Amino acid sequence: MKAIGVTREGEGVERLDVERPVPTEGEALVRTLRVGVDGTDHEVVAGSHGGYPEDSDHMILGHEAVGVVEDGNGSGLEAGQVVVPTVRRKPNGETNEYFRRGEPDMAPDGEYVERGIVGDHGFMAEYFTSPADTLVPIPEALAEYGMLVEPISIAEKANDHAFSTREPFEWRPESACVLGNGTLGLLTLWMLGRDFDRTYCVGRRDRPDPTIDIIDELGATYVDSRETSVEALPDAHEAVDYVFEATGYAPHAVQTVHALAPNGVGALLGIPGPWEFEIDGGTLHKEIVLHNKCLIGTVNSHVKHFEAAVDTLAEMPDWLLDDLVTTVVGPENLEAAFEDDDDQIKGVVEFDTL
Amino acid sequence: MKAIGVTREGEGVERLDVERPVPTEGEALVRTLRVGVDGTDHEVVAGSHGGYPEDSDHMILGHEAVGVVEDGNGSGLEAGQVVVPTVRRKPNGETNEYFRRGEPDMAPDGEYVERGIVGDHGFMAEYFTSPADTLVPIPEALAEYGMLVEPISIAEKANDHAFSTREPFEWRPESACVLGNGTLGLLTLWMLGRDFDRTYCVGRRDRPDPTIDIIDELGATYVDSRETSVEALPDAHEAVDYVFEATGYAPHAVQTVHALAPNGVGALLGIPGPWEFEIDGGTLHKEIVLHNKCLIGTVNSHVKHFEAAVDTLAEMPDWLLDDLVTTVVGPENLEAAFEDDDDQIKGVVEFDTL
Repeated sequence: MKAIGVTREGEGVERLDVERPVPTEGEALVRTLRVGVDGTDHEVVAGSHGGYPEDSDHMILGHEAVGVVEDGNGSGLEAGQVVVPTVRRKPNGETNEYFRRGEPDMAPDGEYVERGIVGDHGFMAEYFTSPADTLVPIPEALAEYGMLVEPISIAEKANDHAFSTREPFEWRPESACVLGNGTLGLLTLWMLGRDFDRTYCVGRRDRPDPTIDIIDELGATYVDSRETSVEALPDAHEAVDYVFEATGYAPHAVQTVHALAPNGVGALLGIPGPWEFEIDGGTLHKEIVLHNKCLIGTVNSHVKHFEAAVDTLAEMPDWLLDDLVTTVVGPENLEAAFEDDDDQIKGVVEFDTL
Repeated sequence: MKAIGVTREGEGVERLDVERPVPTEGEALVRTLRVGVDGTDHEVVAGSHGGYPEDSDHMILGHEAVGVVEDGNGSGLEAGQVVVPTVRRKPNGETNEYFRRGEPDMAPDGEYVERGIVGDHGFMAEYFTSPADTLVPIPEALAEYGMLVEPISIAEKANDHAFSTREPFEWRPESACVLGNGTLGLLTLWMLGRDFDRTYCVGRRDRPDPTIDIIDELGATYVDSRETSVEALPDAHEAVDYVFEATGYAPHAVQTVHALAPNGVGALLGIPGPWEFEIDGGTLHKEIVLHNKCLIGTVNSHVKHFEAAVDTLAEMPDWLLDDLVTTVVGPENLEAAFEDDDDQIKGVVEFDTL
């Protein structure tokens, strides 16, 4: 069958011809509909993140997928059910406490593999197999944009974890700022627009730009970080109650603390490499303490977050989904989906339709 | 009446002779029993923290107090009731949303005064007045150590806020580390010993030392930060699930992240001044995200935390309280209570007994 991936010998993303997988006990066979491309995929292709499955000379890419069950294989899923797969799997088939609890997103480094990212094949192929409890059913009407359930689930987890830090007191947030104007940032900006009176989104692009158009359309304020640094947000606009960092730009962790209003919380999601720089660590520490601030890191997501994401996707307006998904191509034109210029927001490879 | 405080003209802590306060409507008059001295008092005396009440040439010190109601003044409190006062009060008598909610500890800088610290007189006098809703009743049997309710309440709040950040998943913590071996650190170390299998306490003292004796007696492991830095804790002992920082040493904020096990949380309580230094901000950011870590700042406490602290104090063993309170002297010998050498843990000024 057709697949898209990377090879140890090759360079860049490649068309692969691989065997159709056969489901083992408890697994269903899924016919792939669409698979999204994100920044992590680009990092895997560039070799700066992730790693090959053991004993394999290639890795099939793709972790943002939607498909339809081709063969339930006695797993409890019925053929024809539209599903979205979660990403983390047990390492070497050996379970551990995190998987037993249904919280693989809380497993530390080394206690999981990630499909299409590290140690396991992804979903960018005509078919894939997956354990039934890793396949989240979604309504047929959402199939077209089902590949967005995975990134939305990342935001669901981050928001859930971040807001829970403010549970012990009466938090009355009004404003939120998303750092980063990629797909994750823009999806989150819409989500936060439901709960916050005022939202901001930080990017580093000139108008006209399709992401800034979406920010405008959402009624959010675009902040160009080349003119207004994140820590200058309180002076330029206002100190915000919530910061959602989706840039991976290391100085944003510290700057987030200064962008926050008293009693605010910052969720960090980016994964930068090592980078040494000077900070005023005393003022940072004092500001966190005196104003009851919080910085929380979150990574990945689990079934509960995928289920919340399905509900969120159902609420999203059509125009937003249409504008976010800038490219949908068949595997024969995969280059267009992996194009990473300023006109691209979300590139998608479509293997089949319902 | 006799009081202890600082004056704009003078230097250091002074004996004062002031008018006995008269309770206004809603306030009770309290006869002071004991008042503890802590690091904040030393900072106020040194002039590095806090500030005088407006229109006053002096400030009475003391924010860790226990007293007995002398005159309920129709406030609902009965004469003879033993009480502990909270610390924050409305600024200039003007209320705001934080006080209305009963959460003055969440008020930002400028929206509160603190008795004995900033903008309002403290409790280090023969009598003080306070609104009835800022006086937490405690059993008579706890009066002797009632001045420890305030510092315990600080730990109650910090633990409550920190642990709530781990609510969204099944957190199974085993180990905790307290940074700092002052009264707050040692009280917290006992509290954490109830919930954690293994506890550590970081100081920078040589044996023999009264704080290290308490750490030993509590079954905790003493870590000398001159030999083992906080970020080296995982190599020297173990990565811990919870860090409680009570040092105000600015590098501890960043080091805490590296001392934490995956999914761990660090509570910051110290209030350092500005201090620039270099960090590996990329690795810090990545570690927070990839291992779902959290840093939370907390300051002060409100009535609910004082009430929890009363219960906690009732559970504390006598030997611990006896060993912690190293000096109890009348106001005529206040210098002994303010002595700050390695033999002192908690100095207390006793104005009266029940």
